[in-house]
Amino acid sequence: MADRVNRPARVWGMASPATSERGQRSGRSRRRERRPAAEHPAPAYITRRIPYYDLLSEDGLDLIERHADRILGEVGVEFRGDDEALRLFREAGTDVAGERVRFAPGQVRALCATAPRQFTQHARNPARSVEIGGDHTVFSPAYGSPFVRDLEGGRRYGTIEDFRNFVKLAYVSPWLHHSGGTICEPVDLPVNKRHLEMVYAHMRWTDKPFMGSVTAPERAADSIEMCRLLFGADFVERNCVILGNINVNSPLVYDHIMSGVARTYAAANQATVVVPFILGGAMGPVTPAAAIAQAHAEASVGVALTQLVRPGAPVIYGNFLSSMSLRSGAPTFGMPEPALAYMAVGQLARRLGLPLRCGGQFTSSKVADAQAAQESADAMMPALMAGTNFVLHAAGWLEGGLTMGYEKFVLDCDRLGMMHRLLEGLALDDNAFAMDAFLEVGPGKHFLGAGHTLANYQTAYYEPDLADSNSFEQWLEEGSKDALARAGELWKAWLARYQAPAFDPAVDEALGAYLAKKKESLPDMWH
Amino acid sequence: MADRVNRPARVWGMASPATSERGQRSGRSRRRERRPAAEHPAPAYITRRIPYYDLLSEDGLDLIERHADRILGEVGVEFRGDDEALRLFREAGTDVAGERVRFAPGQVRALCATAPRQFTQHARNPARSVEIGGDHTVFSPAYGSPFVRDLEGGRRYGTIEDFRNFVKLAYVSPWLHHSGGTICEPVDLPVNKRHLEMVYAHMRWTDKPFMGSVTAPERAADSIEMCRLLFGADFVERNCVILGNINVNSPLVYDHIMSGVARTYAAANQATVVVPFILGGAMGPVTPAAAIAQAHAEASVGVALTQLVRPGAPVIYGNFLSSMSLRSGAPTFGMPEPALAYMAVGQLARRLGLPLRCGGQFTSSKVADAQAAQESADAMMPALMAGTNFVLHAAGWLEGGLTMGYEKFVLDCDRLGMMHRLLEGLALDDNAFAMDAFLEVGPGKHFLGAGHTLANYQTAYYEPDLADSNSFEQWLEEGSKDALARAGELWKAWLARYQAPAFDPAVDEALGAYLAKKKESLPDMWH
Repeated sequence: MADRVNRPARVWGMASPATSERGQRSGRSRRRERRPAAEHPAPAYITRRIPYYDLLSEDGLDLIERHADRILGEVGVEFRGDDEALRLFREAGTDVAGERVRFAPGQVRALCATAPRQFTQHARNPARSVEIGGDHTVFSPAYGSPFVRDLEGGRRYGTIEDFRNFVKLAYVSPWLHHSGGTICEPVDLPVNKRHLEMVYAHMRWTDKPFMGSVTAPERAADSIEMCRLLFGADFVERNCVILGNINVNSPLVYDHIMSGVARTYAAANQATVVVPFILGGAMGPVTPAAAIAQAHAEASVGVALTQLVRPGAPVIYGNFLSSMSLRSGAPTFGMPEPALAYMAVGQLARRLGLPLRCGGQFTSSKVADAQAAQESADAMMPALMAGTNFVLHAAGWLEGGLTMGYEKFVLDCDRLGMMHRLLEGLALDDNAFAMDAFLEVGPGKHFLGAGHTLANYQTAYYEPDLADSNSFEQWLEEGSKDALARAGELWKAWLARYQAPAFDPAVDEALGAYLAKKKESLPDMWH
Repeated sequence: MADRVNRPARVWGMASPATSERGQRSGRSRRRERRPAAEHPAPAYITRRIPYYDLLSEDGLDLIERHADRILGEVGVEFRGDDEALRLFREAGTDVAGERVRFAPGQVRALCATAPRQFTQHARNPARSVEIGGDHTVFSPAYGSPFVRDLEGGRRYGTIEDFRNFVKLAYVSPWLHHSGGTICEPVDLPVNKRHLEMVYAHMRWTDKPFMGSVTAPERAADSIEMCRLLFGADFVERNCVILGNINVNSPLVYDHIMSGVARTYAAANQATVVVPFILGGAMGPVTPAAAIAQAHAEASVGVALTQLVRPGAPVIYGNFLSSMSLRSGAPTFGMPEPALAYMAVGQLARRLGLPLRCGGQFTSSKVADAQAAQESADAMMPALMAGTNFVLHAAGWLEGGLTMGYEKFVLDCDRLGMMHRLLEGLALDDNAFAMDAFLEVGPGKHFLGAGHTLANYQTAYYEPDLADSNSFEQWLEEGSKDALARAGELWKAWLARYQAPAFDPAVDEALGAYLAKKKESLPDMWH
């Protein structure tokens, strides 16, 4: 990282139409630029201004890569039921035997070389487009919970109404750059039609970028087709407008759904997030170094597949590693071993020159208590120090991912604001050094009324939404509310003040017709 | 930092009599070695095996040092009512005008040069002696709260019984290396006699190292005198056995009590912790860079004073920086700006070649809720990444330091265990890479029963005391307890299982006689 001396204190990475790397916008996208921006004047994404934390030496990284190469060569990866993936790997000169693909040392790395180091994911509001990769960081809500929880309703199955609520909450938060994907499972909708309503909700109730379906290749195709209606087919062909997050069936297996979904997004020039999903001791060895090498092998093979489908297709090197409780065998979160792993993974992703998805505000706690906050903090900070570019599960995650929490969501968002400030680094300019204030105030006096303080106090410190720094007496007077109780009030206030961003009625009509036709064409499936 | 490749996974820094740098032990200290060790076979302190995080470039550090020099030269530091300190500075060739001392650029740095980079603080149990400085980290409980809090009793003034309870809890925790100082104020004792009972409690109910009184030079002298009874006067003359933590009257003032206390400890070859106490916007400018430069100036002047008193006396470069709420002006904790400051301060301390006190599990929350845990985590992690050697306030802190929490204490201790593991780094040896497991298990199978898993699962991951990773159903069945409720059970269990370490009756008698004589010689003072 370059020196931070004499750079301005707060230089947010603000996306603009000029950041589009893939050509001119369509008429439809140009029209979008005249629409009002979202409620908060907030950064579209973070541009990091602090150095990366390098845990391992180059020798250590070499060693991990060599072990990943050994796994890829001596064990290999299976692509189950996907002849097209096997054909692509065979044609690329790898060793394909049945469904097992083995790789020569360095071969996968070479196949990843065409993937872009950084790409723009476009939002329907161009001011909300995000840069993924390089020195940038994007925060996205948690993903995939069957349950939701709030203080009053307790834990219950998620519905499409909950889903829409979280889309709206993510829109209101200035600190989430992305609307996410399956924020919670809308279990009140048929399994084979949920994706249509989820993608529509991301298009309709927010103007932030979002993710598409990955539960079947045809649902991924639906997600992309809906994007063509929103952004214009030409624009979609030339620009990334949607992400699909696939989990590897760790250890060392891609099933035909995952690889098929990856191929679908890549073929459409849309981004796949390739995520080895390793609960240490279960889907991988119990020692972190082995899990890191395995994850590196698995992720890079998935990245390679996208590049065989379409060289240059945007793709994100993902990582999901947990530890395990010795007492119960349950996965644990926020523990130090995955934290160390994230740091190593950040270095490995930079070596490959790929955007990294890693970390999140993880916890195994059932409620938004001290355990949840500690684990979330300790899972997130190392991932950010390591240079993570795309943080899925940045807000709302509870109970090992089984539950999306309303209160947890706003607590996490508040901390994401703090993390914005952290990644900004220290200003070291003349104003920041305040020599005038020292000369004005002198020994033993206070700075509260100093000119420098008055000129700077409104921007000097992050002002949290939820932290209570009042006196004990004032806190008592206000009802002795803990952070959970305050969060229970805040998310309702956010929903109350939510205002939908404008939406082109013609696009809405086209999407409605697409959804109606699709729903009609399929019988409802409930499992 | 050197490479971690092929180093053993868990190499704790275990103190031993051999680590004493200052000569042979007295007869009394040799006798101590035969006593039983504390309950837990745990590390006496941490030896860091991960790299430091360097936030700033050398240019950035130069800039901070230049501004600290400007503060020291253009404004200066006042030593109020301490003619001896002023005499020492005058004789050292600094510019003393009235009580104001001004320094030429680099002059303070040069005066700090005789301070040791690292020293041993001896415990009465030699296996508990700690190394302070270098690559080592020592955790110590929170300090100075007038109030205590537990779930049942709520918030109330602290008593000597609370004080003893916390000494015992810190003894039971394997993750606290140090017994601390004024863990809470025993307000049921006269102000001028509290120190006697506090120091005695640290000597009697634990065998970990501890801190002495700083509220008056004569109370510091009492603390040292009691150490002479415990360790032997010869041993104390040649070895550090006690720390005194002094806060600068920031900005840029030392009152005669603080400088007198520092001189008292230094003269006895005992360690002073010199701590600028800056609530940003109040005792220093509101911009972090200025507060860092001010803190650097203030701390290094205090260090210099100890070296003028006795060159080579052990001393710790301390730091306490908080941010401020824009809404209320109240200090805030766990915020990103102090986190960035800690990182810079770590680099500055290493440049000076001094042990660093920084960070802590800080919060402004009144209770051990999500706010408390998030703020504590975010205040601690950056301080550790920055290389902090001595962490005061590592456990128990609530409400900006006004309250010592029983539940917070055990929650914090659990996280200190995690931080031990984090600072240990990643093992990258053959066992850690588990190639045998990959060859045994193969694609699509699980590792739960693999030989490598069975051989490693008991040591692979930190096992928290308080985090609940059980299923939702099991958690319900067990009473739906949040972390706070579980912590309320744990501290009681710890107290119940506490067993006092053996104590030499002759020493106890000598201490008792000293306390009786001292108490008799002074009228009780209550303010």
